[in-house]
Order: sequence, then structure tokens, then C-alpha cells
Amino acid sequence: MNTKSNPPDWQVAQWFNTAKPLSLATLSGRAVILVAFQMLCPGCVSHALPQLQRVRAAFKEADLAVVGLHSVFEHHAAQGTSEALTAFLKEYRITFPVGIDAPAVTRGLPATMQTYQMRGTPTTLIYTRDGGLFTHHFGHIDDLNLGALLAQAIAI
Amino acid sequence: MNTKSNPPDWQVAQWFNTAKPLSLATLSGRAVILVAFQMLCPGCVSHALPQLQRVRAAFKEADLAVVGLHSVFEHHAAQGTSEALTAFLKEYRITFPVGIDAPAVTRGLPATMQTYQMRGTPTTLIYTRDGGLFTHHFGHIDDLNLGALLAQAIAI
Amino acid sequence: MNTKSNPPDWQVAQWFNTAKPLSLATLSGRAVILVAFQMLCPGCVSHALPQLQRVRAAFKEADLAVVGLHSVFEHHAAQGTSEALTAFLKEYRITFPVGIDAPAVTRGLPATMQTYQMRGTPTTLIYTRDGGLFTHHFGHIDDLNLGALLAQAIAI
Amino acid sequence: MNTKSNPPDWQVAQWFNTAKPLSLATLSGRAVILVAFQMLCPGCVSHALPQLQRVRAAFKEADLAVVGLHSVFEHHAAQGTSEALTAFLKEYRITFPVGIDAPAVTRGLPATMQTYQMRGTPTTLIYTRDGGLFTHHFGHIDDLNLGALLAQAIAI
Repeated sequence: MNTKSNPPDWQVAQWFNTAKPLSLATLSGRAVILVAFQMLCPGCVSHALPQLQRVRAAFKEADLAVVGLHSVFEHHAAQGTSEALTAFLKEYRITFPVGIDAPAVTRGLPATMQTYQMRGTPTTLIYTRDGGLFTHHFGHIDDLNLGALLAQAIAI
Repeated sequence: MNTKSNPPDWQVAQWFNTAKPLSLATLSGRAVILVAFQMLCPGCVSHALPQLQRVRAAFKEADLAVVGLHSVFEHHAAQGTSEALTAFLKEYRITFPVGIDAPAVTRGLPATMQTYQMRGTPTTLIYTRDGGLFTHHFGHIDDLNLGALLAQAIAI
Repeated sequence: MNTKSNPPDWQVAQWFNTAKPLSLATLSGRAVILVAFQMLCPGCVSHALPQLQRVRAAFKEADLAVVGLHSVFEHHAAQGTSEALTAFLKEYRITFPVGIDAPAVTRGLPATMQTYQMRGTPTTLIYTRDGGLFTHHFGHIDDLNLGALLAQAIAI
Repeated sequence: MNTKSNPPDWQVAQWFNTAKPLSLATLSGRAVILVAFQMLCPGCVSHALPQLQRVRAAFKEADLAVVGLHSVFEHHAAQGTSEALTAFLKEYRITFPVGIDAPAVTRGLPATMQTYQMRGTPTTLIYTRDGGLFTHHFGHIDDLNLGALLAQAIAI
């Protein structure tokens, strides 16, 4: 296991589907899966987000937190607004917490995407119960492998 | 066959993927399938539009014209702009002609949607070679039945 | 349309799911789809037969007859018996008529398979209402194209 | 974890795809998944066996042994012979070891099926590295949950 200790915090401009802002600190004690997505990314919409909904149904809240991160790095006018994401989450019936990745301090990719050096969307991050970074994967992970990774992250 | 003669014209504010505006008159001589959709309608994105891409590949241009109509009746701020649709068509690699349904003259549903009394999205309209309305269907049509309907519309 | 007149009769050793033997003559007046299959052919079991069940549901009995032909050309001990086919049809809930392709007169492929020079399974034959051979296809046909072919065969 | 110690041995009449007979003892040190199936069970053929092939690809041989058990309890004439299973494994390209569940000593269900009180096919058994029975499930398990169960069985 190459769990990385003390991974960077998420930088979120606005949260949806949660009463309080979330962070690795507030979720400590549970494993966490975060998927960075864009509402106009076909692979995210057809695969990664439905998979994340299956993950939410398959694992207990007490064992695993499920979080979406809207990391818009293209088509800002089309998908970069709070109204656009609100409509998307409603129409796709996404009920787990989702944050909007904060804009870059100077320019370029959104802040969390930059900090984690993500290569695009979807990107999946899995953390252990103590907040260590267990998995960082760009692109598709099939359900069998994702189920195994999550069970491992929960067990550590 | 309950083909309806002289169905109403489409009212389109802006065309994409076509050099010239399209109409039943300009397409006369070919059968036509038009699907009214919204980019934030999950059933349109996951089923109706991929099906329309399969239709484009399965039938000859000389026999059948394939047209999309972006009929936005909700979430106007999120999906009602030209920029939003441009980004959507690019990311989903939609290359057949798509029109934006014109705004209502006074208020309510967009103009073509009103004229045809559509109940929602996706709605499929199929026309015969002489422009008669052959099919008006709200919701999903499976591929076997759609293939049969299109062959019939082409043959009339 | 390259409809071939007077195609050869089917040669069937035993019928299932029908009170009387079927032939192009007895089915005259309706279009016909016949699929030659083997119960140990994965492409037949996973694609062609479920598709044929969808065809049965999508078209009217009065317009289209649906027929299976068990054309065993390999693994005779495993799939070549009446008991094996009986069990298969029951477990897969196939209720349309199915014939067992008659053994070759001398040796080699079963009789109908030989007569029609089929290259393997699944093979799809589609006939017009007057018994002309409209389509002879080895391998997969997608639902859109199959729906269109059947509508054409029915309309001729 | 309700791991059951010292589960019963498998009773196998004949092995395929393995040079030596397998048992929980010979596989000790690796977790094991065994799926009891029938070649004429549609749920086994369309879901459980393709899933087992995905499992074989997703986990290391050193961590997990994958075993099929042909537990024929109906249609004996059609699927109960060595020839039938040989043809099935070849056509479906199943390359992991498969055993034929031994006939009942007196009458009824095959021996391993009886010993484990299986309710039908497919039935999935998962064992830990030390041979403890970790999971006994009749019917479908989705990939996410199966991936998690296997990771847990491997980790114990």
C-alpha cells in the first residue's frame, strides 16, 4: 500500500447536498471516495457518476463518505455556474455532497485540480479512514476493481 | 398509416452543424427524423441522442435526414444559451444538424414545442418524403420499432 | 430489392412449439424471419435469440412469422439431441416455433444449412409475404437495421 | 465477519482445465471463489460465468483461486455428460479450473450441492486464505459488492 500521508485539503467554492462544508478533517474516521467531474464530460455522466451512485448504495455511510467535485476546466460559460450545476444535480438525481472546485488563484485549472495535479475528468481519489491518500486514478475504474479498492481503504 | 398532411413548420432561432437553415420544404424528397431534446434531460443524453447517432449511421443521407431540436423548457440559465449547446454538441460529438427551438412568442414552452403540442423531451417526429407527419412520439422508442418506422416512412 | 424467388424448402427433423410442421408454403401471406442457431453458440444465446424474442414482441403475428432452426454442425453429442434442445428451450423461455435442421443426407452440415450454403450460426433468413428470400445474413444484425429490413419485407 | 472454520470438502467427479485435482487443502494460502453453475442456467451463462472471468482478470493468481463447479440437478440427459461440459467450456472460452459435482450417494442433488445445502445455481462460495468459508450466496452479486467481498477475503 502506497498510502500518502497528509494529502492536500480540497479547495471548494460552494457545497451542494450538505448542510456543512466537508473536508478530510471533518470526514476523519471514514474512508472517502471523491470523484472530480464535469457536467459536460460524457465519460463522467455516463459512467463515473452512475458508478458513484452505485458506490453510495453498496457501502455504509459509517464506513465510506462519497463526494463529488465539480472541477470545471473548459466550457466555463456553459457549465461553470452555480445554476448549471444545480440543474444538473437535480435532473440526474445526485444526492451525495458535491463541491465546486475553487477557481485558480492566478489562472488555469481549478485549485484542487491543480494541487492534486489531476490530468482531467473523471479523476477518482480514495482516502483511508485516517485521511491518507490511497488511490489517485484518472479515467475509468471497473466496478470489481473499485469495490476491491474501497474495501481495502475501509479496512486499513 | 395516419400520415398528417401539411404539418407545421419548425421555428428555429439558430442552427448548428449546417451551412443553411433547414425546413421541411428544403428537405423535401427525403424522409426526416427530428428529435426534440434538452442537454440536461438524462433520457435524451443517455438514450435518445446516442440512438439518433446510430440512426444517422444506419440510413442513407439520400433517404433520411436526421435533425435535432433543442427545445429548452426548464433550467433556461443552465442550458438555454448558445454557448451551452455549442459545448454540449462538441463534447458529445454530435455532427448532424441541430436547431434551437425559438422562444415562445408570449410565454411558456418554446415555439415549435408549443405548435406541435409536445409533452416533454425526448419527442420524436418522423416525416415521409413528401413532408407528411408519420410519427409523433414522446419518450423512448426501442431500436427495432424505430428501424421499422423509419423504413416505412422512407417507403411511402 | 434482390428478392430471390422460390427459395429452397426447409428440411426439419422435428418441430417444437408448434402443433403442425411449418414451411414457407404454410406461412405464405406473412413475412418470415428464420434464425439458424446452436444452443452452444455464445453469439446465438447472448444476442441472436434474445433479439428474436424482441422481434416476436415488436411485430404482429399476422405480419411476421418467427422461426428458429437448430442447425447443429459441431458438438453433436452435447447439443444434437432432442432432450438437449427441449431443456434449452424451456430454460431460455423460447416460445416461438423451433425446428431441428435435418441431418445431412450423406455427411457434413445439416440439410437446410447445406441447401442454403450457410457459413455458420447465427444465420438470419428473411422472406417476403409471397415466400421470396429477401435477406440472408451470417452474424449479427443490429436492431435498427433488422427493424428496417423486417418492415421492408412485410411491405413488399 | 462470520467466517466458518473447516467447511466441507468439495466432492468432484472429474476436473477440467487443471492438471491436478483441486481442494481447499491444495489451495491453502490463497483466497478462493467457487461458483456452482449449470450450463443450461441462463443466469449462470449470461451473468455469473462472465463475471467469474472478469474476477480472474482482476485479481492475482497468487491472491485468489477461481473455480467453477458444474452442479447439475436438472436436465441430466442434456447437460450431465462430460462431452456436454467439454463443449460448453470450449465455446465459452472458460479457462479456469472447473469440476463436475459428484453424483449424490443415494439420490437427489449432486454431492457438494447437498453438503453445502445450496438452493440452486448460481451459488457463490468465497473462502479466506486459511480455508474458512467467508461468503455463501445464492443468486446474483453485483461487481462492486463482489470486488469488496473478495478484497476482504484476501485480506483476512
